[in-house]
Amino acid sequence: MIKPLFWKNQHLFIVDQTRLPGEYKLIEIRDHLEMAEAIRKLAIRGAPALGIAAAFGLVVGLKPFRNSSKKTFLGELQKIAAILQNTRPTAVNIAWALARMRQIAQNLTDENTDSIWQVLLKTALQIHREDIAMCRKIAKHGQTLLTDEAKVITHCNTGGLATGGLGTALGILITAHKSGKKIHVYVDETRPLLQGARLTCWELSREGVPFTLISDNMAGYLLANRKITAIFTGADRIAANGDTANKIGTYGLAILAKYHGVPFYIAAPSSTIDPSINSGDQIQIEERSGAEIREVCGVQMVPENYPAISPAFDITPNALITAIITEAGIKYPPFQFRQ
Amino acid sequence: MIKPLFWKNQHLFIVDQTRLPGEYKLIEIRDHLEMAEAIRKLAIRGAPALGIAAAFGLVVGLKPFRNSSKKTFLGELQKIAAILQNTRPTAVNIAWALARMRQIAQNLTDENTDSIWQVLLKTALQIHREDIAMCRKIAKHGQTLLTDEAKVITHCNTGGLATGGLGTALGILITAHKSGKKIHVYVDETRPLLQGARLTCWELSREGVPFTLISDNMAGYLLANRKITAIFTGADRIAANGDTANKIGTYGLAILAKYHGVPFYIAAPSSTIDPSINSGDQIQIEERSGAEIREVCGVQMVPENYPAISPAFDITPNALITAIITEAGIKYPPFQFRQ
Repeated sequence: MIKPLFWKNQHLFIVDQTRLPGEYKLIEIRDHLEMAEAIRKLAIRGAPALGIAAAFGLVVGLKPFRNSSKKTFLGELQKIAAILQNTRPTAVNIAWALARMRQIAQNLTDENTDSIWQVLLKTALQIHREDIAMCRKIAKHGQTLLTDEAKVITHCNTGGLATGGLGTALGILITAHKSGKKIHVYVDETRPLLQGARLTCWELSREGVPFTLISDNMAGYLLANRKITAIFTGADRIAANGDTANKIGTYGLAILAKYHGVPFYIAAPSSTIDPSINSGDQIQIEERSGAEIREVCGVQMVPENYPAISPAFDITPNALITAIITEAGIKYPPFQFRQ
Repeated sequence: MIKPLFWKNQHLFIVDQTRLPGEYKLIEIRDHLEMAEAIRKLAIRGAPALGIAAAFGLVVGLKPFRNSSKKTFLGELQKIAAILQNTRPTAVNIAWALARMRQIAQNLTDENTDSIWQVLLKTALQIHREDIAMCRKIAKHGQTLLTDEAKVITHCNTGGLATGGLGTALGILITAHKSGKKIHVYVDETRPLLQGARLTCWELSREGVPFTLISDNMAGYLLANRKITAIFTGADRIAANGDTANKIGTYGLAILAKYHGVPFYIAAPSSTIDPSINSGDQIQIEERSGAEIREVCGVQMVPENYPAISPAFDITPNALITAIITEAGIKYPPFQFRQ
């Protein structure tokens, strides 16, 4: 199983996903600032993996304060959590993991900050283990939605690199292949940062799943000509009513699916659900630098003075979603997620 | 006015569009084989420009046969036309221009091949002039479809680089700007070969038209959030019933426009209409190398063994098209183009 990050001998390592598929390179994350930077530049990404990364970011950030007073320790925890929280605004999993860590620390009556830190480390490891278990359940539930000889379009990367475990949408597809179903995956390259072309193809290739790489604007052509049976994507935040923020382009894909009468599925652990917001219009969309559009893999294609925008996500309204697959099972509309 | 090709002192030159916007480079086209190669690698592209290029390709190809017998000359004409025809199968303008040139040569009673060649040269220049006039008329007709403060999405390149004159869809937009309308153009980068990012932005930048470069998967987001007023694209072939082949991604855009209740316009000279076919399913779609998807601007992004496809066009059915603008005016459905 691919692990986007792991804790070994008291050190934290992540796979630098900006270098894949050309190079598989591990980098050590020594404090929360290095983790914040890794998150911002998408060396680690994917909503579920970001939750795990934020928890471990807090652990490495608090490491130097294991002998401080409890007051100092908890003060630092707040500061570090704020820094990690401010890296990327859309994926709710960061806030979810940090809130859980914060609450555990605050509820401990222990005055020994080293033992509080040990509990936080255990909690981060626990969040990671839970994510692995959730992915496994999502993959299992999703099997009922895949016919033999399914032809599926997927967007961005929702595999092991995006989670702690098997992946969400991609975990379902890889599991179907391993169980003997003849599936074929059409992979949206996913501009601007090409997580589909670079990461999803890399994972499918390692697992031997038949796939075809396409540019994002080919989905309509495939739906009209190649008998696509379903579209599966992940999610960065799901509102109480099922409206879903996911990688830019997801909304357009969902409209294309609706037009062609093809089911459109979202797969995500329940840590991606934000029941505190009623609908998608309350989700903040991260606006990244227009340079991402002027460049591809660091190569500048057009002059710097060409204006460009890079909203990282869009909102797919619940009416376009056939079902949402979580570790709890398959939910059909009307969606109503509760706290 | 930008000219993708021109005839000067008995020599033919084209702008190498594969090098834009980084470099404006002219290359001389000395025979039909060089023209065929230039068309195949998209150094010259755009359906109307391809018609002009094919006519001039025939002229330079026949140059060495100006003292041959009429039989030899006409035999070579057939061979050269076949080579030029086989470069790209979707745009009908190549076939249209070659048929016109062939017919003129065959109808001439003159036995002097040099004078036949001179007539063909005049015809090629005439085709170019007619295209300039058609673009001007298309731009004029299109003005009625653009409100002040229009926010328009466009796909691929349909400007001066794609035609003999002002352009088709882009000609309409540039003309609106020049006439004082405050318009804003959102430019699809147009993967895989980035004609939008490289060529359309270059043209808009030269003309001072406000624009924003986007990746192709952002159109849905813009339609939902930025009050887009219309989508304008060109065409590579239009069937008698109005079904339109255009750059891959056009079909998806048309579906998104329909979903959001935004008008979707096609602009093209009547040489793009192929009344010999009833509907879009009779249009052959050019399948280019998957390497185009694995690469961006010649830089390889993912391993060569990742399977990829590159259909260059898709078909937008007439039901998704609000109107087709030709030099003859604005046509609304039901479309019925006759020979």
